[in-house]
Amino acid sequence: MTAPVTTLRVRYSEIDQMGTFYNSRALEWFEVGRTEWLRRTGMDYREMEQRGVLLPLVESHVNYRSRAGYDDELAIYVTAAMEGRARMRFDVKLTQASSDTVVAEGYTVHAIVGPEMKPVRPPAWFLDLIAAAPNE
Amino acid sequence: MTAPVTTLRVRYSEIDQMGTFYNSRALEWFEVGRTEWLRRTGMDYREMEQRGVLLPLVESHVNYRSRAGYDDELAIYVTAAMEGRARMRFDVKLTQASSDTVVAEGYTVHAIVGPEMKPVRPPAWFLDLIAAAPNE
Amino acid sequence: MTAPVTTLRVRYSEIDQMGTFYNSRALEWFEVGRTEWLRRTGMDYREMEQRGVLLPLVESHVNYRSRAGYDDELAIYVTAAMEGRARMRFDVKLTQASSDTVVAEGYTVHAIVGPEMKPVRPPAWFLDLIAAAPNE
Amino acid sequence: MTAPVTTLRVRYSEIDQMGTFYNSRALEWFEVGRTEWLRRTGMDYREMEQRGVLLPLVESHVNYRSRAGYDDELAIYVTAAMEGRARMRFDVKLTQASSDTVVAEGYTVHAIVGPEMKPVRPPAWFLDLIAAAPNE
Repeated sequence: MTAPVTTLRVRYSEIDQMGTFYNSRALEWFEVGRTEWLRRTGMDYREMEQRGVLLPLVESHVNYRSRAGYDDELAIYVTAAMEGRARMRFDVKLTQASSDTVVAEGYTVHAIVGPEMKPVRPPAWFLDLIAAAPNE
Repeated sequence: MTAPVTTLRVRYSEIDQMGTFYNSRALEWFEVGRTEWLRRTGMDYREMEQRGVLLPLVESHVNYRSRAGYDDELAIYVTAAMEGRARMRFDVKLTQASSDTVVAEGYTVHAIVGPEMKPVRPPAWFLDLIAAAPNE
Repeated sequence: MTAPVTTLRVRYSEIDQMGTFYNSRALEWFEVGRTEWLRRTGMDYREMEQRGVLLPLVESHVNYRSRAGYDDELAIYVTAAMEGRARMRFDVKLTQASSDTVVAEGYTVHAIVGPEMKPVRPPAWFLDLIAAAPNE
Repeated sequence: MTAPVTTLRVRYSEIDQMGTFYNSRALEWFEVGRTEWLRRTGMDYREMEQRGVLLPLVESHVNYRSRAGYDDELAIYVTAAMEGRARMRFDVKLTQASSDTVVAEGYTVHAIVGPEMKPVRPPAWFLDLIAAAPNE
C-alpha cells in the first residue's frame, strides 16, 4: 500500500458529538476506496453491475486507530484479490493525508452475484481484470 | 395534527458535533412519518411500489425550530393530501414527545411515477386511499 | 440471546440499489441495540456520558447473513461484557422479527475514555452496572 | 453561478432503491458546497468554529430536478450572503459535471451563534469575510 487510490475530506455530517467520525462512516469510506480501486482496473463498478456482476458484502471488519475531525483530508489505500473461487476481498487503510497517521483499517469480503442476487461463477473477464489490477 | 403517527429515539449516529441532530436527518425522519401515515391508509408504501406507484420527491422544506439530542424521543405528526392532480404533499412536524416542543416542521412534495420513473396518472385506488386517509 | 432488546423498521433511506440495506447501516443498528441494552442496566448511555464515561469503538465486525428490505421489522439481540479491564464488548444479532432469519451478526469492541477522550480506569459504578446487567 | 466550488462523485451508499440519490443527501452535498465556499473566503469553517462562530441551520429548501446515479460526478455551485443582520443564506445548485443538467437546487438559512449555541452579533471579521467573498 504505497499510493492512495484517492483522498477525501471528512464532511460535517460524518462527525458525531465526540468530535470524530461516526464509526459506520469508515465502511462508507471503504466503499469510496473500492470504487476507485475498481476504476483503475479499467472497468468501473457501475459498468460491472451493468454487465451483471454485483459484489454484496458478506463480512466487514474495521479497526479504529485514531480520530479524524471535520474537514480533515484522508488518504485511502486499497489492495484487493479473489478469496477462493467465489469471493473477493478488499483490504483498506485510511490515513491522515498530511501525516500518514492511520485513522482506520480493515477489510470487506464480497460475494459475487448476478442481477438476481444469486451467486454466480465469476466470468473470465472479471477474473482477468482482478488478476491484472495494480495493488500498489 | 392532534396525534403523532409514530415516535422515534434519536440515534447517536444522527447527532453532530454541535450536539444536536445533523440537518439532513429531519428529511429521514419525515420519511419515517410518511411510511407510518401511508400504513394507516390500509396499503403501505412497499405494497404501493409493488403495485407500480412510486413517490419520488420534487421538493422539500424544513424549518429547524429547536435542538434534539441523542436518545431524545420525538413524536412525528403528518398530514397529507393530493396537490393538484399529479402531485402529493406531506406536511410533517417533529416535536419532543415529552414536552410538545417543536423540533422541526416542513413539507415534502412528491411526483407520482411508475416503475420506469415516468409520471403516471394516479390510479383510482390510489386516489381513493389518499382521499379516505385520516389526517389527525 | 433469547429476547430482543428492541425492534426497528428498516427505513427507505437505509436501502441501496440492490434492494437491501446498505452495509454500514448494520453498525448504526448495532448502536441502537447498545443504547437499549445500556438502558436496561438502569443508567442510559446519555447519563453515562454526562458522568464522564464514553465508549468509542476500537473495533467492529459484521457478518452479513441475508437481505432485509424497506419496512422489514428487525429484532435486535445484544449481549455485553467487559473484555479485560479496560474494554467493553457488545455482541449483536439482527433478525427478521417475523421469522427469526438472521440478517446480520457481529460485535463491537469499545475503549473506555473520559470527556477528554483519554483512556480512564472504569469507575466502580460502571463495572457494577455491567456486571449486574441482564444478558438474555 | 459560473464556476463550481467543487465536484464530488455520488457514493453507492447515497443511492436508494429507485436508483437515484436519497433525498436527504442533497442537504449533505449542500454542506460540502458551503465548506468549499467558506474555504475560499480565506478562513475555513473549522477555524470559524474555533473562533466561536457557528452556523446552525434554521431553514432548508431543496428542489429536486433530475436523477443522479452511483458514481455520477456532480458539480456544486454556491453563492452566499448575509440575510439581514443576524442570518446567513447559501444558495446551492447541483449539476451533472459532464452536461450541466441541474440535479437539485435550493438554499439554506443559518443562524449565527456562539459556542454556547446562543445567537451572537456577527463579529466584524466575519462580516468582512462574507462581504469580500467571491460569488462566482
